Amino acid sequence: MDFHILTIFPDMVKEGLDTSILARAASAGLIWINAVDIRDYTLDKHGKVDDYPYGGGAGMVMQAQPVYDAFSAVKKQCRTPAPRVIYVTPQGSVFNQAKAEELSKEEEIIFLCGHYEGIDERVLEEIVTDNISIGDYVLTGGELPAMVMIDAISRLIPGVLNNDVSAEIESFCDNLLEYPQYSRPEEWRGRKVPEILLSGHHANVDKWRREQSLIRTLERRPDLLESANLTDKERRFLEEYKNTR
Amino acid sequence: MDFHILTIFPDMVKEGLDTSILARAASAGLIWINAVDIRDYTLDKHGKVDDYPYGGGAGMVMQAQPVYDAFSAVKKQCRTPAPRVIYVTPQGSVFNQAKAEELSKEEEIIFLCGHYEGIDERVLEEIVTDNISIGDYVLTGGELPAMVMIDAISRLIPGVLNNDVSAEIESFCDNLLEYPQYSRPEEWRGRKVPEILLSGHHANVDKWRREQSLIRTLERRPDLLESANLTDKERRFLEEYKNTR
Repeated sequence: MDFHILTIFPDMVKEGLDTSILARAASAGLIWINAVDIRDYTLDKHGKVDDYPYGGGAGMVMQAQPVYDAFSAVKKQCRTPAPRVIYVTPQGSVFNQAKAEELSKEEEIIFLCGHYEGIDERVLEEIVTDNISIGDYVLTGGELPAMVMIDAISRLIPGVLNNDVSAEIESFCDNLLEYPQYSRPEEWRGRKVPEILLSGHHANVDKWRREQSLIRTLERRPDLLESANLTDKERRFLEEYKNTR
Repeated sequence: MDFHILTIFPDMVKEGLDTSILARAASAGLIWINAVDIRDYTLDKHGKVDDYPYGGGAGMVMQAQPVYDAFSAVKKQCRTPAPRVIYVTPQGSVFNQAKAEELSKEEEIIFLCGHYEGIDERVLEEIVTDNISIGDYVLTGGELPAMVMIDAISRLIPGVLNNDVSAEIESFCDNLLEYPQYSRPEEWRGRKVPEILLSGHHANVDKWRREQSLIRTLERRPDLLESANLTDKERRFLEEYKNTR
């Protein structure tokens, strides 16, 4: 899958995504991270990409021309005629795991990262297909959110994670939080691994883990339980747990 | 403000936060980004920091010892006796702008970034004060979310942004989305800047911008309007707008 990122900080994007997992996926040809410097496309003789906002106000606005020309250059490299163009903005719909799954089916995505007080509205109208936010908070630029989305999407691409199981048993799959994990040693600073995990009795281990997931979700993110796929027995277990708290 | 990040990818964190704004804040001494390599603290002779999970299952679990020793070393450098320790996890409460503001009042924060299938529960119980998620999606590690939080928090620290106005007039301040922005030229690819922005009439410009914010919030994030601080006149404006749609 090809990720094209239109940015004024291409190095930040390249380095910030250089973890073992994504770097391995890139060398294996499973993903391509193409960070494109918007500054390379400005026609301004001083290399500027921003200017004052019409109507006044604080901050600077990124201009239409360099953004559009960077986009046009990238589009020529694309494999599909109408790739999705995601503008990373707090004004967008909020990214979640379902959106990551949907986007992981694309062949290529172009991300547009803003800075300053935003980007000239006209170029957004001209090129953007999706406005997406990663959460209700304000950041200095669109690079980190683009990197977050690229990470979430990439790990869903077959072959990127070591084992596909790993992606599947994780948080949010069943809309439940993950159970607690323990590794060696059996005792650390007086704290012991729960005995059931040492029992070798797989059915009991699975049961305990599922119960821990249910309890955690109830304690920390009860909102997730509404859309979780629970059996009647599990719902009764949670009711009983609530009564004994 | 000091940000200590416990991670197995310290370079990724350093490079990924190296934007003009945060780099300038760091050189001005307003923030300190201290990325600490957990691997430097493992007692394993092969430099390993992870091991198989007790009870079986896919993936590896980060062990308690290296995490705890990295934490202990950082704590000695801290200015306050009980700094907040944020574990970045999809299991946490969801980060938002109010949380960013709250955290921007701290003198220092320690971020703990997990990988693989998580971190041994016992060290989390021992050191973590806050479990925070940046959204309902799964990532390959905790580094990008920590960077996102550091960015959101840093820009609220006085002096970090060029002008404090800039932080204030932005999205989410009033729980409304920002109005569209335009910069030179007046006409681009046949698209013109709205005339009112060229009028020089500040009161009219402000009125238009506020209306655009209201309309955008209604169109894209109506959920935000519930907690927005609107005048009766503004509520009537939105009602009328809905009727003419």
